[in-house]
Amino acid sequence: MLTNVEHIGIAVRDIVASNDLFTKLLNVAPYKAEAVATEGVTTSFFQVNQTKIELLEATSPDSPIAKFLEKKGEGIHHIAFEVDNIQAEMERLKNEGFTLLNDVPKRGADNKLVCFLHPKGTNGVLIELCQEIKE
Amino acid sequence: MLTNVEHIGIAVRDIVASNDLFTKLLNVAPYKAEAVATEGVTTSFFQVNQTKIELLEATSPDSPIAKFLEKKGEGIHHIAFEVDNIQAEMERLKNEGFTLLNDVPKRGADNKLVCFLHPKGTNGVLIELCQEIKE
Repeated sequence: MLTNVEHIGIAVRDIVASNDLFTKLLNVAPYKAEAVATEGVTTSFFQVNQTKIELLEATSPDSPIAKFLEKKGEGIHHIAFEVDNIQAEMERLKNEGFTLLNDVPKRGADNKLVCFLHPKGTNGVLIELCQEIKE
Repeated sequence: MLTNVEHIGIAVRDIVASNDLFTKLLNVAPYKAEAVATEGVTTSFFQVNQTKIELLEATSPDSPIAKFLEKKGEGIHHIAFEVDNIQAEMERLKNEGFTLLNDVPKRGADNKLVCFLHPKGTNGVLIELCQEIKE
């Protein structure tokens, strides 16, 4: 079950400048910054009620964010939905005909297991499913 | 104050097909459909916790959605934040250096007063402020 819009990811070129911009816009400071080496990104998070705004800057030229910026420029990159059972939801969506970009949940930012859906099957929208890792 | 991610707007070419697709994705049916003649769009809304997913199809070739589809293709079009006082928030953001696309709140879909910020000042993200009309 998709239970919440957990975050919205925004690709930016200069995360320091964008942190300042989004602090003014949202009137709240980012509550954390985190690098995700496996994705080649550095991120920062702002909380707005039950949804986070995640800024993403590429840290290497072959990062998916670097490719996105090159192709489309800065802007909204993905929507992440919180799920209560990521395995079950991946199974359900696969059976509904959606294409998963990873067959096994992988570790993302902010202590989450994540799976992405191919945007060709979702009207051009990159969708992430995420579930908090409880340890 | 920006109090919530009220909705995420997604531009689609065929809202009937996309209603079906998003019903499968979100595992919930749209709770309403609405045409906004002034914007040249027809819309449908899905509720996910405290955030809505709004699908937008153009109803005329000079609609902002028709232009977006032509330029960028299907995908995420805007993020709308709920505000408690739209006039005060417009004033605050103008003073912070953001460019408002309308100087006076205008009537949008879903019984809201709305104002858009120019995406050139927000890292390419089209931001909507919205406040429910209480009558």
